[in-house]
Amino acid sequence: MRTSVAIIGAGPAGLLLARLLQQRGIESVVLESRSRDHVEHRQRAGILEQGTVDVLRACGAGERMDREGLVHDGIELRFGGAAHRIDLAALTGGRRVVVYAQTEVVRDLVALRLDSGAPLLFDAEVLAVHDAETERPRVRYRHGGAEHELTADHVVGADGFHGAARRSIPADRIRTYERSYPFAWLGVLADVPPSTDELVYACHDRGFALHSMRGPQVSRLYLQVPPDADLADWPDERIWDELDVRFAADGWRLRRGPITDRSITPMRSFVAEPMRHGRLLLAGDAAHIVPPTGAKGLNLAVADVVLLDRALAAAVQHGDPRPLESYSDTALRRVWRAEHFSYSMTTLLHADPAADEFGRRLQRAQLDQLVDSAAAATSLAENYAGLPL
Amino acid sequence: MRTSVAIIGAGPAGLLLARLLQQRGIESVVLESRSRDHVEHRQRAGILEQGTVDVLRACGAGERMDREGLVHDGIELRFGGAAHRIDLAALTGGRRVVVYAQTEVVRDLVALRLDSGAPLLFDAEVLAVHDAETERPRVRYRHGGAEHELTADHVVGADGFHGAARRSIPADRIRTYERSYPFAWLGVLADVPPSTDELVYACHDRGFALHSMRGPQVSRLYLQVPPDADLADWPDERIWDELDVRFAADGWRLRRGPITDRSITPMRSFVAEPMRHGRLLLAGDAAHIVPPTGAKGLNLAVADVVLLDRALAAAVQHGDPRPLESYSDTALRRVWRAEHFSYSMTTLLHADPAADEFGRRLQRAQLDQLVDSAAAATSLAENYAGLPL
Repeated sequence: MRTSVAIIGAGPAGLLLARLLQQRGIESVVLESRSRDHVEHRQRAGILEQGTVDVLRACGAGERMDREGLVHDGIELRFGGAAHRIDLAALTGGRRVVVYAQTEVVRDLVALRLDSGAPLLFDAEVLAVHDAETERPRVRYRHGGAEHELTADHVVGADGFHGAARRSIPADRIRTYERSYPFAWLGVLADVPPSTDELVYACHDRGFALHSMRGPQVSRLYLQVPPDADLADWPDERIWDELDVRFAADGWRLRRGPITDRSITPMRSFVAEPMRHGRLLLAGDAAHIVPPTGAKGLNLAVADVVLLDRALAAAVQHGDPRPLESYSDTALRRVWRAEHFSYSMTTLLHADPAADEFGRRLQRAQLDQLVDSAAAATSLAENYAGLPL
Repeated sequence: MRTSVAIIGAGPAGLLLARLLQQRGIESVVLESRSRDHVEHRQRAGILEQGTVDVLRACGAGERMDREGLVHDGIELRFGGAAHRIDLAALTGGRRVVVYAQTEVVRDLVALRLDSGAPLLFDAEVLAVHDAETERPRVRYRHGGAEHELTADHVVGADGFHGAARRSIPADRIRTYERSYPFAWLGVLADVPPSTDELVYACHDRGFALHSMRGPQVSRLYLQVPPDADLADWPDERIWDELDVRFAADGWRLRRGPITDRSITPMRSFVAEPMRHGRLLLAGDAAHIVPPTGAKGLNLAVADVVLLDRALAAAVQHGDPRPLESYSDTALRRVWRAEHFSYSMTTLLHADPAADEFGRRLQRAQLDQLVDSAAAATSLAENYAGLPL
């Protein structure tokens, strides 16, 4: 099989890139190792930056998002038993976020792709990318019990942290940066209307908690837990009791409901440099991971894809390879800013078990500053709502 | 001897408080353990915030400062071989800093005090403060070969980190927070016109460097060195060579000259809480130390004194003890913000020998953000130029 752009991974990055290229008339094949059912049901992020919303809308993937997504003008920081609102829209000249789950974005993009008849193969496990440094890179994959090869002009690895794309790059041609955190997130979905209109980020001595949502009838809640926490130790009642303690504020009550999904997610920062190896280009989690506190992961993947779409168009349609050659440098400036923001939000809001008293007081001083200083709040808001693409 | 306010320490905090109280007609005695010559020659900080400048001017201690001080509208951050200016005045609605050495401030305040004839005793070593929890606290001190006692309505401990005032508070009534850093500053004075109009804060892989000044003919330069560095290992040529490397930028040259003073200063963060024990009140370094990177130490002492002056006036002249009772809480909010800023500037600009590659890249991302984001630059500028008093 032969195509112009081989896209590995049918997550939001791969699917969105396929869509953008298709609208330009550039052919691609999307290979996804998991089943459609799996891809459309895994619980991931849920906060779309203004720029992400704009891109999805412009490429025709925004119809259901505009109908079902919840537009949020702000977020709440809760600490010292009090609520402090960060007015994203007012601080950033009107930039907002939309609460719409990544899994819904994926469903919308899968439907568009399949409706168009363009190739999207599920259960197609990529084994390796070959000859990335030539003009004819090849993707070897397994599908329907047999091995196949897809030859392309360019290969995009959007297959996540554990995918084959990055692993196909020789170790001496890639450098990685990594940080793990001394905590994880226990996340639950609950069939109960959210107890808040906007997201609540709570910083408590016992640990961080986040109240998010998946629409008007479903609450999404997270608790900081030790990295080796076991779901078996967290029966429903313990989860709700702990959430009650960490969210406690005057006149506020957390609504409880049946928990329908639960998982523990480790937290990690990771960057691979460069994001290009010859004609193999990495996008999203394949190249970088952020801890979820700043809601940057999905949005950073979209930012990569917007750059890639333009760069591939220049190369394929105008014979200009320069935007592809500078793709990695361009993308990484945004990546590192998002890495820094995600790290900062994480350390600002979590209880570090190794922190001394001085460290805890500095953390509180930094939270207080977000309340006292419009400049500090604006800096947070512009990073959270997202930089222009 | 008896007075209204016993002030321990003739540094800028003690002397300024004595001046402010004197202008209100409140009597005080200042006790200083060192000689006048020592106090007027020790090299300390040199950056006065707008608020500090305003206070000195308003109390009649600004004449020489206004004549000899250098008004600076901005500072330069230098990293990656390039200069990036932070325009303090533009970002803060006109707040500026003045380069005028602490030792000059002290000389001006000493002269005012001595001219007024009000008591200021040098070589008066305070041994302890007694009965701070009564209405008649006593200061025991040694002067002229004999022990004496000064009885007062209130005692202010402005005698620095190693002074007797804080040590007079029972250990179970005070809580301390502390952080040391894995580096120190080697500071030199050189008889050579500064090579820059504004302060240059340089962040280099080999370590931090700062180019400041003491007027148009004298340069003040600092190098990050290991905490156990020995001056004997730093002959003049090595100092200048290392400064050259760390400040290196296109089209810029560092002027060399005779080094007239050199010292190594450890870097420490420290806070004692509360800042009041009965009628003993702590101000400046006696209660809190910041690393010098943010130029907050002297200015924070002045902020304490401004609060104390008002609070003592309320107590002594209007019989209202409440401002004194809330002095510690009020002062500490600003103290912790300055502690956070000083810590942030220090970690932002120094090379941490224990940092991993990920940490170094985050540091660079944070520096880049100061260039890319007006909000981030404003947050730095408003902390650096100083909050209103």
